[in-house]
Amino acid sequence: MLSDRKNQHLDIVLDGRGRGAARTGFDTIAFAHVALPELHMDEIDLSTSFLGRRIGGPLLVSSMTGGPARADTINRHLATACAALNLPLAVGSQRVAIEAGEVGGLGTELRALAPNVPLLANIGAAQFNTGFGADEARQAVDMIGADALIIHLNPLQEAVQPEGDRDWRGLLHRIEEVARRLPVPVVAKEVGSGISGPTARRLWDAGVHVIDVAGAGGTSWAAVEAERAQTPRQAAVARAFSGWGLPTARAIAEVRAACPDAVVIGSGGIRDGVDAAKAIRLGADIVGQASGLLEAATQSAEAVVEHFETVLAQLRVACFCTGSADLGQLRRAALLEP
Amino acid sequence: MLSDRKNQHLDIVLDGRGRGAARTGFDTIAFAHVALPELHMDEIDLSTSFLGRRIGGPLLVSSMTGGPARADTINRHLATACAALNLPLAVGSQRVAIEAGEVGGLGTELRALAPNVPLLANIGAAQFNTGFGADEARQAVDMIGADALIIHLNPLQEAVQPEGDRDWRGLLHRIEEVARRLPVPVVAKEVGSGISGPTARRLWDAGVHVIDVAGAGGTSWAAVEAERAQTPRQAAVARAFSGWGLPTARAIAEVRAACPDAVVIGSGGIRDGVDAAKAIRLGADIVGQASGLLEAATQSAEAVVEHFETVLAQLRVACFCTGSADLGQLRRAALLEP
Amino acid sequence: MLSDRKNQHLDIVLDGRGRGAARTGFDTIAFAHVALPELHMDEIDLSTSFLGRRIGGPLLVSSMTGGPARADTINRHLATACAALNLPLAVGSQRVAIEAGEVGGLGTELRALAPNVPLLANIGAAQFNTGFGADEARQAVDMIGADALIIHLNPLQEAVQPEGDRDWRGLLHRIEEVARRLPVPVVAKEVGSGISGPTARRLWDAGVHVIDVAGAGGTSWAAVEAERAQTPRQAAVARAFSGWGLPTARAIAEVRAACPDAVVIGSGGIRDGVDAAKAIRLGADIVGQASGLLEAATQSAEAVVEHFETVLAQLRVACFCTGSADLGQLRRAALLEP
Amino acid sequence: MLSDRKNQHLDIVLDGRGRGAARTGFDTIAFAHVALPELHMDEIDLSTSFLGRRIGGPLLVSSMTGGPARADTINRHLATACAALNLPLAVGSQRVAIEAGEVGGLGTELRALAPNVPLLANIGAAQFNTGFGADEARQAVDMIGADALIIHLNPLQEAVQPEGDRDWRGLLHRIEEVARRLPVPVVAKEVGSGISGPTARRLWDAGVHVIDVAGAGGTSWAAVEAERAQTPRQAAVARAFSGWGLPTARAIAEVRAACPDAVVIGSGGIRDGVDAAKAIRLGADIVGQASGLLEAATQSAEAVVEHFETVLAQLRVACFCTGSADLGQLRRAALLEP
Ligand SMILES: Cc1cc2nc3c(=O)[nH]c(=O)nc-3n(C[C@H](O)[C@H](O)[C@H](O)COP(=O)(O)O)c2cc1C
Ligand SMILES: Cc1cc2nc3c(=O)[nH]c(=O)nc-3n(C[C@H](O)[C@H](O)[C@H](O)COP(=O)(O)O)c2cc1C
Ligand SMILES: Cc1cc2nc3c(=O)[nH]c(=O)nc-3n(C[C@H](O)[C@H](O)[C@H](O)COP(=O)(O)O)c2cc1C
Ligand SMILES: Cc1cc2nc3c(=O)[nH]c(=O)nc-3n(C[C@H](O)[C@H](O)[C@H](O)COP(=O)(O)O)c2cc1C
Repeated sequence: MLSDRKNQHLDIVLDGRGRGAARTGFDTIAFAHVALPELHMDEIDLSTSFLGRRIGGPLLVSSMTGGPARADTINRHLATACAALNLPLAVGSQRVAIEAGEVGGLGTELRALAPNVPLLANIGAAQFNTGFGADEARQAVDMIGADALIIHLNPLQEAVQPEGDRDWRGLLHRIEEVARRLPVPVVAKEVGSGISGPTARRLWDAGVHVIDVAGAGGTSWAAVEAERAQTPRQAAVARAFSGWGLPTARAIAEVRAACPDAVVIGSGGIRDGVDAAKAIRLGADIVGQASGLLEAATQSAEAVVEHFETVLAQLRVACFCTGSADLGQLRRAALLEP
Repeated sequence: MLSDRKNQHLDIVLDGRGRGAARTGFDTIAFAHVALPELHMDEIDLSTSFLGRRIGGPLLVSSMTGGPARADTINRHLATACAALNLPLAVGSQRVAIEAGEVGGLGTELRALAPNVPLLANIGAAQFNTGFGADEARQAVDMIGADALIIHLNPLQEAVQPEGDRDWRGLLHRIEEVARRLPVPVVAKEVGSGISGPTARRLWDAGVHVIDVAGAGGTSWAAVEAERAQTPRQAAVARAFSGWGLPTARAIAEVRAACPDAVVIGSGGIRDGVDAAKAIRLGADIVGQASGLLEAATQSAEAVVEHFETVLAQLRVACFCTGSADLGQLRRAALLEP
Repeated sequence: MLSDRKNQHLDIVLDGRGRGAARTGFDTIAFAHVALPELHMDEIDLSTSFLGRRIGGPLLVSSMTGGPARADTINRHLATACAALNLPLAVGSQRVAIEAGEVGGLGTELRALAPNVPLLANIGAAQFNTGFGADEARQAVDMIGADALIIHLNPLQEAVQPEGDRDWRGLLHRIEEVARRLPVPVVAKEVGSGISGPTARRLWDAGVHVIDVAGAGGTSWAAVEAERAQTPRQAAVARAFSGWGLPTARAIAEVRAACPDAVVIGSGGIRDGVDAAKAIRLGADIVGQASGLLEAATQSAEAVVEHFETVLAQLRVACFCTGSADLGQLRRAALLEP
Repeated sequence: MLSDRKNQHLDIVLDGRGRGAARTGFDTIAFAHVALPELHMDEIDLSTSFLGRRIGGPLLVSSMTGGPARADTINRHLATACAALNLPLAVGSQRVAIEAGEVGGLGTELRALAPNVPLLANIGAAQFNTGFGADEARQAVDMIGADALIIHLNPLQEAVQPEGDRDWRGLLHRIEEVARRLPVPVVAKEVGSGISGPTARRLWDAGVHVIDVAGAGGTSWAAVEAERAQTPRQAAVARAFSGWGLPTARAIAEVRAACPDAVVIGSGGIRDGVDAAKAIRLGADIVGQASGLLEAATQSAEAVVEHFETVLAQLRVACFCTGSADLGQLRRAALLEP
């Protein structure tokens, strides 16, 4: 059952077994410290806009699904916290809700909890080869009153899942069609293996103008699937890929170079506001986290607020110590060449 | 006794003491992940041809000998599995069988078990300085109805064995002669120290058109011989070479560059289908394993089938996540430069 | 209370929890050994001049504050030792003493204990945005009869302290003014995150001609503040920066290149006379230590003397084994390129 | 007492505390394996000549002194073994013997035990500033009937010994004089910190045509002296230099490049015949060991013979697996570029 699987995913990620063997690459990057910043730290402007809305900081709740019972709680906590901090929120895959013809997760309650933040709907790319089309895409958006639709590209995850969708033929064309017909922007997103420059460029040319790299170094779906494998072979196949993927730092730099005008979301293994600052320096417009805030999300909206305020405080310190008055200046901050 | 020695070899390799200090080099190589492969994973074509026969995948059972009792069982399991999956099978050294004038191992029973797969006979190069010639080479081939004859080049192994053959003078000429007179192709193969570009080129010019690099990073015969040494000196001499050799990844790249038209077998320390994919990307036509499948080979044909299906499944996922519809495309897949 | 905080700082640094995750970079630098130095080791001249006074060696006691009770003892030990060895001494921040309108620490007693050594007063840069001006600067100098005024630049430290000064606007201009109006030179100094080439150049152009890099690799104020944080958020914010900063070796080289005529103090994580020799080789005129001598400073003047004599002895051996008769020759000693 | 000190040295080195923090550099060098050597391993010619005599292999017993009682035993074992294998033998410093006006160690007994091998006398360079001259040099040579005189250059060792000789002024000139007046060649040798290219060149120009690099990575006299220090300061001064020095591999390459026609002895941290092969490949004519054979030397002549036969066997295998019929070919063997 899909909902059982999602429950297992949550548990495996929560107790730390979901981290793979890859590194994000952020550890090898360092800012040149500015000892005389000439700023008022409290006046550093971390706000930015995303999907046409002004947001409280360059942060995003990355998509997470869970078994139905827990997903509701998690989403309620996330939405309440995002509303409080004015941060964008991406929901987990809406496949089940759409297939069941019912509003899964929180549906319109989500938008009610967070009326002004950018909300992102979510569907897997492979669904467009198993019956979904522009109609279902629009349904996903409407269901939650979303500002954009994430189409997640997860070939490795599908490949190592026994139940996975293996038919990925012609998907670029399908995505192009959805992007043309949908009234809101489409976001292309990996789930932890990264989007490369060339792939991003193909997506850009197909009309996808927001790319979430979701690179390697954080949650590894190969590691997760190895943990819940039913047979030795499934486990072995998945395990061999636990270090697979484009490191997040590199994926961001590649995508930014390949698509200078795209909105780039830097995600995958972001631990704190220093990683976030590096992601932004390398080319990300905003930065997403999934596993890093899952613990807080299972607890309470307050815990999520606390989590994000910590990340924002770290990001503010990073701006201060690089002499950056805002994110635009952070993007030009000097790095130590290795 | 030779058969005692072979028994010890099996035990040392089986309990993990046969791995040396060298690295294959595969860990420093990574594919650029393709997030939108546009393939049907089940339609990826892993088949290829080898020695004029179509095979089920680019995999090979590398030569292994064992004490007579166990060799029979092992070979039976391997042959049955290879027949089931249509994979090529190389037998261990046939020296004893030829010297004894009798058909060792399984002889024609092997061909009976695996009537359609490429079978490879095996003789040590040094034997051609201790009495063997083109006649014995042909005998080895005929004994099992082989499609090719492997001549293994194992100078380090001979050098660290007290019983080793030390006279390697003029062997290239002898190999050339065998290659000219034998009706089937000759394969030159190391046993875990690797064949370099220049050596491969000399072999190519002598008429050897198939090279199995058998590089460093997997089984180390210096490590094995150190384990079974009778005297401290033998152990110390062998131990000093446990890190010796051309790393497999490098050997493959060198041989491919030196001999663009050779059939290259990538082997030595191949752990899984991801290593296999890297070996192919670097220039191997097919990929061999010895120690990695020995455990399964001692158990049953089913265990060997399971082993290879796992490797093939991993290789298929690697093709999928690099957007490669077949092995030809995998050979051109993008790598992350380090 | 400020004095409580200072007491905690001492304890955290003393028991080793003040060391961050950064490296000084000295470990990757090595001198080319000179096997035939042709010197008399006892005649190697380690003396140099600093702030117009001849000193016993290129060493400096870096600024340290402590709770009032302990600061007095520590300063007395340091001053007595510096007098004995004729080494310069920098006091810790005089903010409290100036704000209280009283002579904190030892005041004129310090000068009485060490009548001939260069003494350096100390004020935080941020104070010039919270009421201090050239008058207070002069007060700090006069209070101890100092030869120079250190203005410490500690944006990271302020940023991760809950009580920290966050308003750093216009400080370069304020520092420029102080430098113009003060009868003694101004020294700009970090506290463990390093001063970069560009920042040093801006300071130089503003009339600051002595730079103490105080780079990363030794005491990390982020690590220290993480240890004494009151809330999880404070701890998490600080902890994320425990590896932040310009490694000392690099900071020295950058500042020397950017300001060829500046007096450069190399400090931050200096462990011994070999590190000191490397700092000098990279461009430092003299070398400062804080945490490395704190233990001795809490014990006795003799312990401090012993500490410095050890460092000087090591520095002398480094000169000897690089064939350097004095510090000028040490600056041209050959390094092993990596 | 000098002899107490020497006794301590032996014990510290014997129980492994004499190894410093430096690396020889051999681990980063690898030969390109030759899978088809076309040699008879037993016919590989390891003999060479040294100081005008043909020797059994490119190996040398490096100078070692010990307390008088043990030195005699050790030297007797070494001499007997060297005679058996026809290997050159360098004695430890003869200073005490010369100063006492008596024949220390074994004196002429040594030559009687090993009538045909190259024997090397040994005096410290610093002695030529404390009373020794060409007469004492000749005395050292005559005392044992030596074929050459080693003048050891040990500035770091002297510098970290409380009793050390610190006056090294004008020594090059003194060495030049000795070299001119002595009827046998002078060898310049470090004791574990390495001789650099430029220093070797100065020695060559002064008439010293044999250089023993004795580089870093094996015995570290700073580590040894730290172990036997009487005071914390002595220990701390010495300890800071336990990683000091030119790595042996680099020293050999530098000296060979600076002095193409010199006889170069590669020593310092040589562990086995593979290290020896690398040293020769990098430019050494012969290879010396001290600490590596000390254990055997305290046991028996047989143990020393066994030790050297093991090293020679390893060297032979290295020649075989690089396709080198003799040392000249080994010097041109292909390396793996890193
Ligand atoms: C429990 C869990 C569920 C997830 N579900 C989805 C999903 O439904 N759709 C999606 O696009 N990504 C999903 N992801 C992937 C994340 O959005 C994210 O791309 C990935 O975990 C990498 O980020 P991280 O390292 O911060 O966890 C999920 C991740 C987790 C941990
Ligand atoms: C037990 C055992 C026996 C072997 N016997 C032979 C042999 O008879 N002939 C041969 O060419 N190679 C022999 N090999 C070497 C393998 O074919 C292979 O080249 C080597 O083990 C490296 O591959 P691996 O790292 O996958 O084990 C043997 C290997 C093993 C482990
Ligand atoms: C206990 C302690 C107190 C310090 N107080 C001051 C201070 O008041 N003013 C200042 O400029 N630096 C201060 N520092 C920073 C040091 O001067 C020095 O720049 C920093 O500790 C890096 O050097 P180290 O790695 O040798 O400790 C203090 C350092 C310590 C350890
Ligand atoms: C116990 C001992 C005594 C030594 N005595 C001398 C000596 O008297 N004269 C000398 O030139 N070198 C002496 N050495 C240095 C060695 O000759 C050699 O250069 C050094 O130990 C580095 O080689 P290794 O790493 O193989 O030990 C001595 C070394 C040891 C271990």
